[in-house]
Amino acid sequence: MSTHLVRNVRPRRALKCQPVSILPHARGHCTPPTNQDSNPCRTLLQLFVDRHFISPGENNVELFKRGTTCCYGPLGLNFRRNVLHQWWSSMTGSRAQIFGINTPTSSAEAAVDGWGHLRITEPDDLNKILKQKELSKEQLIHSVHISLQNSALLRTNVFQGALEHFVPSFEMVNRKLPFGLAETGRCFQPSKDGTAEITQASLVWFCSPRTSSQWLDHWARQRLKWWRKFALAPSDFSSSDVLQEELEGPASRGVKIFYNFPWGQEPLEVLWSRGDCELLHIHKGMRSKLQSRDGRKSVPHVVSVTANVDRGLLALLSNSLLLHKRENAKQQLQQRKVLKLHPLLAPVKVALGIGRGATMELRQVCEGLLQELKEAKISVWPGYLETTSTPMEQLNAKYDEMGVLFTAVISENTLESGLLQVRSRDTAIKETMHISDIKNFLCRYISAAENM
Amino acid sequence: MSTHLVRNVRPRRALKCQPVSILPHARGHCTPPTNQDSNPCRTLLQLFVDRHFISPGENNVELFKRGTTCCYGPLGLNFRRNVLHQWWSSMTGSRAQIFGINTPTSSAEAAVDGWGHLRITEPDDLNKILKQKELSKEQLIHSVHISLQNSALLRTNVFQGALEHFVPSFEMVNRKLPFGLAETGRCFQPSKDGTAEITQASLVWFCSPRTSSQWLDHWARQRLKWWRKFALAPSDFSSSDVLQEELEGPASRGVKIFYNFPWGQEPLEVLWSRGDCELLHIHKGMRSKLQSRDGRKSVPHVVSVTANVDRGLLALLSNSLLLHKRENAKQQLQQRKVLKLHPLLAPVKVALGIGRGATMELRQVCEGLLQELKEAKISVWPGYLETTSTPMEQLNAKYDEMGVLFTAVISENTLESGLLQVRSRDTAIKETMHISDIKNFLCRYISAAENM
Repeated sequence: MSTHLVRNVRPRRALKCQPVSILPHARGHCTPPTNQDSNPCRTLLQLFVDRHFISPGENNVELFKRGTTCCYGPLGLNFRRNVLHQWWSSMTGSRAQIFGINTPTSSAEAAVDGWGHLRITEPDDLNKILKQKELSKEQLIHSVHISLQNSALLRTNVFQGALEHFVPSFEMVNRKLPFGLAETGRCFQPSKDGTAEITQASLVWFCSPRTSSQWLDHWARQRLKWWRKFALAPSDFSSSDVLQEELEGPASRGVKIFYNFPWGQEPLEVLWSRGDCELLHIHKGMRSKLQSRDGRKSVPHVVSVTANVDRGLLALLSNSLLLHKRENAKQQLQQRKVLKLHPLLAPVKVALGIGRGATMELRQVCEGLLQELKEAKISVWPGYLETTSTPMEQLNAKYDEMGVLFTAVISENTLESGLLQVRSRDTAIKETMHISDIKNFLCRYISAAENM
Repeated sequence: MSTHLVRNVRPRRALKCQPVSILPHARGHCTPPTNQDSNPCRTLLQLFVDRHFISPGENNVELFKRGTTCCYGPLGLNFRRNVLHQWWSSMTGSRAQIFGINTPTSSAEAAVDGWGHLRITEPDDLNKILKQKELSKEQLIHSVHISLQNSALLRTNVFQGALEHFVPSFEMVNRKLPFGLAETGRCFQPSKDGTAEITQASLVWFCSPRTSSQWLDHWARQRLKWWRKFALAPSDFSSSDVLQEELEGPASRGVKIFYNFPWGQEPLEVLWSRGDCELLHIHKGMRSKLQSRDGRKSVPHVVSVTANVDRGLLALLSNSLLLHKRENAKQQLQQRKVLKLHPLLAPVKVALGIGRGATMELRQVCEGLLQELKEAKISVWPGYLETTSTPMEQLNAKYDEMGVLFTAVISENTLESGLLQVRSRDTAIKETMHISDIKNFLCRYISAAENM
């Protein structure tokens, strides 16, 4: 079966096979459908549902589109973990001194500026108050107020934790600047439809006052470079300075990193040069603990670098989707979607399928190989568990939509000679390889992508 | 300086150097202090504060001790990431078919059983109601009720997400049993002091009804083995069946995994055999979508495996702390604390220090080595940035408390011959090694621990 497939597939490359991004031309709004492919936004989002990046359901898809945390399926979770892992590596692996921290989502202590004002309430507590018949209306209102004030606050951004954690970290680095605190986590923001749950990846950078503007530029460049590293069409990621009239809070300067979605440009990341007033405010009366060991005893200035992780995932997914249009044997125009995710981010590196042959024995070979690859920390898809009647061509199309880097087909031939067919997502070319070589081949391929 | 240190340290091994766990004997409560070391619980927790595992502050330490999410410092964050990474590897790397998912912490949709009843409220909304003077007391109460009902729910456990996500995942595996969904994340539980924030690591395992009891036993064994794999004193981790009268909700059987803290035994992980009623309830009227492809068309039974991550961290930290008592040169009894964390979990694998020599040049060597190690994904501590006046012996004591596996000292000798001193946390023995060998030495050491 596998040779049959090879014969079927090889000539394809001679046909019209042109990569067409569905994204770049529709800047302001989704353009009306020009062919049966209907709305490209919907195509995009539906693919992520069909291929288990996100869970089905209109609400869930809407949450994802808005850049808020939604329900991720198995592929989405792997992809998300890979993106977060790369973010951490880029932070803690850089030449800069950056340490990770982890702070709670909620705070039971008295309201702190910067925490926002969403609260966790225990309706039973409020109900108890509302049921007290002897209370007058005024007493009731007063009691509800008190109850709310005593309830825990939910953070509206991750940034606040690093400011609160500043003093022990500063001691740890012997009060030497610059250094940074990195954290990823959920936060909650009021939105017009209730509460939006956001996942932020946050770097809070502490530096001497005279260098803060340079550091803002440095981090803006680094972060844009990071996004583009994983992009297929890097120019869809851009950055620009925040206008004077749009500066927020104490910020003296700001930079935003944008992605051009089919439905318009949206910010993925925001960087602010925030000065020292928040640090001074949070650590009131402890000025001496905030002073660096340099001659000037300056209080550090803060540069915050905050990415919206979920919107970033959507941007990277959107950016990676290519449409190949080609004619099939009957001269019908077919459209093939390939999710060309960066090798480091692809949620599945290899799918194992079976071709013609004794099913039981082939499965055993697959299972052995699956385990070997898993142990080498290569994410592998047990394609041999799919319904066996699906033609290989159709499975390949599915794996391309899943962004699977390679498909290895184990067939009768493998049992005889140890050879298997390995198809590449990006070239659609099939190579014959010995089963004992595939692990090293994949490891080399992935680590080459890492060092690119 | 480094040879001088070696001379000072080597004879130590001839002295009384006996590992004494501070934990195992104090089962029910902390025993009263018998020497100047005062309360062992406090010693334990203070060490985690001093060494940047958790942030200082009585409240924060109390949160940590209770097994709720607290504010973690840089070492705690690394340690936590390592533990979570090992949990994921053990799940998705196992022979079992397990997929990760990620679901939101809150739900804006109508109250669902199992979500608990903590809510996110926007006090401004409530205040608007409370300020409406024209409302009677009854109308006011009614409006507050409605406002609460429309606010988002916060999850009380992570488990619920997997049940809600079941249908698409089941389709993905072609409705073949068994398979599992894994998720880690925060949830919120009411406690007597307000809201407790818990981090759970949850496996929800779907299997055929007749095998669910066997699977419960399987996972209980696997999970106990996992905890013990990282322990210094594995017998402090134990498991036992939940008594019939203590079964919760729909569970027909349960197993708990405990750790013996100095202040008593506490559960780290709970496993329940939950039957099919929750699945049927959540997916009402969709029975056909719940049926497996096996001949019996059975609705899967659910086994939940839920660990409290933060309490697990405290258990693993506590378990790894050893006290060495030894006499110093003046025959005074000294106590040395060594945090013998498993090599895979140790938050810092190597600290780089400098010995005698031209400071500027030595620092440059350190920075080059630091970057090389970082690129090899080895977590490294920039010890050469410490105040240079601290004696090496004192730094070693500190690194032992941090659980740092090795300390490499770069000295004048390194500039001349490329040789450096590498001290092991576990043996306190120093070896001379060429600077070009240390990366491979560490990689081999860590991967050996992985394959143990």
